[in-house]
Amino acid sequence: MTAQARRLVSLVDELKALLGERLSTSAAVCEQHGKDESYHAPASPDAVAFAESTEEVAKIITLCAQHRTPVVAFGTGTSLEGHVAALYGGVCIDLSRMTDVLEVNQEDLDCRVQAGVRRKQLNEYLRDTGLFFPIDPGADASLGGMTATRASGTNAVRYGTMQGNVLGLTVVLADGRIIKTGGRARKSAAGYDLTRLFVGSEGTLGVITEVQLRLYGIPEAMSAAVCSFPTLEGAVNTVIMTIQAGVPVARIELLDEVQMDAVNKYSGLEYPVQPTLFFEFHGSTAGVEEQAEMVGEFTKEFGGGDFQWATRQEERTKLWQARHDAYYAALALRPGCKGWPTDVCVPISRLAECVIETRKDIDSSGLLAPIVGHVGDGNFHLVFILDPDDEAEIARAAEVNERMVRRALAMGGTCTGEHGVGYGKIEMLKAEHGEAVSVMRQIKMALDPENLMNPGKIV
Amino acid sequence: MTAQARRLVSLVDELKALLGERLSTSAAVCEQHGKDESYHAPASPDAVAFAESTEEVAKIITLCAQHRTPVVAFGTGTSLEGHVAALYGGVCIDLSRMTDVLEVNQEDLDCRVQAGVRRKQLNEYLRDTGLFFPIDPGADASLGGMTATRASGTNAVRYGTMQGNVLGLTVVLADGRIIKTGGRARKSAAGYDLTRLFVGSEGTLGVITEVQLRLYGIPEAMSAAVCSFPTLEGAVNTVIMTIQAGVPVARIELLDEVQMDAVNKYSGLEYPVQPTLFFEFHGSTAGVEEQAEMVGEFTKEFGGGDFQWATRQEERTKLWQARHDAYYAALALRPGCKGWPTDVCVPISRLAECVIETRKDIDSSGLLAPIVGHVGDGNFHLVFILDPDDEAEIARAAEVNERMVRRALAMGGTCTGEHGVGYGKIEMLKAEHGEAVSVMRQIKMALDPENLMNPGKIV
Repeated sequence: MTAQARRLVSLVDELKALLGERLSTSAAVCEQHGKDESYHAPASPDAVAFAESTEEVAKIITLCAQHRTPVVAFGTGTSLEGHVAALYGGVCIDLSRMTDVLEVNQEDLDCRVQAGVRRKQLNEYLRDTGLFFPIDPGADASLGGMTATRASGTNAVRYGTMQGNVLGLTVVLADGRIIKTGGRARKSAAGYDLTRLFVGSEGTLGVITEVQLRLYGIPEAMSAAVCSFPTLEGAVNTVIMTIQAGVPVARIELLDEVQMDAVNKYSGLEYPVQPTLFFEFHGSTAGVEEQAEMVGEFTKEFGGGDFQWATRQEERTKLWQARHDAYYAALALRPGCKGWPTDVCVPISRLAECVIETRKDIDSSGLLAPIVGHVGDGNFHLVFILDPDDEAEIARAAEVNERMVRRALAMGGTCTGEHGVGYGKIEMLKAEHGEAVSVMRQIKMALDPENLMNPGKIV
Repeated sequence: MTAQARRLVSLVDELKALLGERLSTSAAVCEQHGKDESYHAPASPDAVAFAESTEEVAKIITLCAQHRTPVVAFGTGTSLEGHVAALYGGVCIDLSRMTDVLEVNQEDLDCRVQAGVRRKQLNEYLRDTGLFFPIDPGADASLGGMTATRASGTNAVRYGTMQGNVLGLTVVLADGRIIKTGGRARKSAAGYDLTRLFVGSEGTLGVITEVQLRLYGIPEAMSAAVCSFPTLEGAVNTVIMTIQAGVPVARIELLDEVQMDAVNKYSGLEYPVQPTLFFEFHGSTAGVEEQAEMVGEFTKEFGGGDFQWATRQEERTKLWQARHDAYYAALALRPGCKGWPTDVCVPISRLAECVIETRKDIDSSGLLAPIVGHVGDGNFHLVFILDPDDEAEIARAAEVNERMVRRALAMGGTCTGEHGVGYGKIEMLKAEHGEAVSVMRQIKMALDPENLMNPGKIV
């Protein structure tokens, strides 16, 4: 037995004494906790600890630190760059039982939740307050996980990402210390912005156990519309025009013709198989009309068809469900295959160029990869639908992915708008940030000198 | 001669060889660079280096590091908590000659400026583009300084603070390395958010030499209005109602009756000497009308008088100039005295309580201290107008200040909404953030192990 294996045995004993049945070493449970929705190879932890409080997380991490054993936090496992893979084994802390909404301050438009609360649960909880939490990455992810990965999604063009919507955090550090960052004030100049440092740190600097979030009043009026375009360029140029004109659209999503074909088949819809924009407008009744009118003019200018409106809640839900199912719809195009989702984000003026060049590159590589995007932010995704046994195909996808990232970087963009780095984009992060990555590493070393917090991710 | 003095002599020689006339050791120049607009005691650096490029800043910092000599960055000297005081001597790097607007990306609503560009210069430069940079802390501060102190000001309720409006930075680190953080994409999940770490770090982690900023389209319509209230409570409750109703006001400023008296006298105006709100609305013509109508209803509900409108640019400029001169107007109330500005920020639901208790505390302490505030954010300021020779008075002010901060913290607020920590609020920062301050210190140690970057500030 190696020293590491011996350490693990004693650690598991101590964790069992602390957690009882809530510490599992079953192969099935471990396997389930080592994989996310990404293409990257999963890696099982040696044990899974189901924590129920911040103090318990602190105790678990303290024990892991004593035994020099890695710690990986787990929310819902819907990350997309291998974030939860236990590359060096160790203990997975599953936060999915920490589901309390701790406070809702209706007058101040904020709330505090435990890390395991999912976004749909929160909005359900808020139902009678007239408030909602807008960030919507598609998956019904946990708010702790969304914070740790700096999630954004369809509403970000209007409401921003987790970066701007997290007011404060409770974090357990690598040595078991519990800190609170930020607070409930809308702004503060009190010291370093630790909140923003932990948002997007992917569990590599500490484990987030509670999140203070901004909330928003549910708009008086909301309506959604779908519009098809003869060309990808027309669709993207409509987006650019809308953003440059400052129209405060709540959502503006692009699905290319490959994706629309998939969505139609998967969701039993009959949209034209053309590049398509999905819009949502929020505001006063007059404001929503004004926005729709302006965007209507832009769509006409770029050859778009008529708007198909969805104003009732259930119609809108159906429309956005189809959008959110895009990933599964894409997978269904080629049964037995695996999806490899990836994303980039560029300045809006370069969006048309970047999307069109990427589409051409995919087509000429002979791969199947629909493009969808939160295009109002300049952010788009593609999903390679790959035969897991066809190594040549996988290699071609890796090349197209790398070319897409380098194209985005050359245009002043970023290697990932919202999926994060995980262990899938570490090389891309270096290409993007150069020397600044060494500063990230210095911070990591300062806060986690033994490299036990989600090792092998980001830096 | 001590070792430190010898080091300084050689350093000055080397800096002179690098910068020639742009390195000054004159007492007058050093004195001017060791003080800001705060009450706190100034402290002169030993030399002032007028840098003209990022590379030059890197060379200066490298030399200072070799000679283990502190570095303090200087923009316009308008900070309010002693940020620029060279508490341990050393070299002040004056960035005021770095005034190039490096790029304006009109289609993407962003620009890149050198750190010495002032906010009015930038807006002047942007005049023909239809764009503007909204952050307005009152003083015509440099954008590097505004970034380093996480400035906000009157427009923050609508446009956010420097935190949300800085897209990326060029920073020279304590060892002379140059890094670029962030980028031009509207969002990114690529690694730790170093940009937000440097925003508000007050020169303690590095010197900011270039800033990438978000810009906004100049709204179709803008109009401003002034409204007086019989009670402070009525004015503050109008603010609370406006924010809770989600009215997207661009500015909503409170001046209490003491401040209104000062403003009338200083700016030759004839507003009622009552608690007063200054509003500004931005949007489409219809949108501005809609906003004004809603706010008008709230003011009536809380006993406010009629709106006095200012729609023409020159009227609005006059109105906001009076608001921005509030500090100087307050000083003019008691000639020969010194101002001690301080600020806190609380959740909006506690704002009335916090302002009213603070007003009472000031009055019962017999001090002169007008209250003004960016109340839409829950942020308010007061300026103690103090006789510099009256130690008892100064001690009473310190007590009122501490009670105000503790009151704000007890209400879930922060010890400073926008003035920062400098060396005036270090104890308050500990009271607010507790153990998290030790994490700030770990980060500081990691990036500046010799403690040479603006030592004695924040941590």
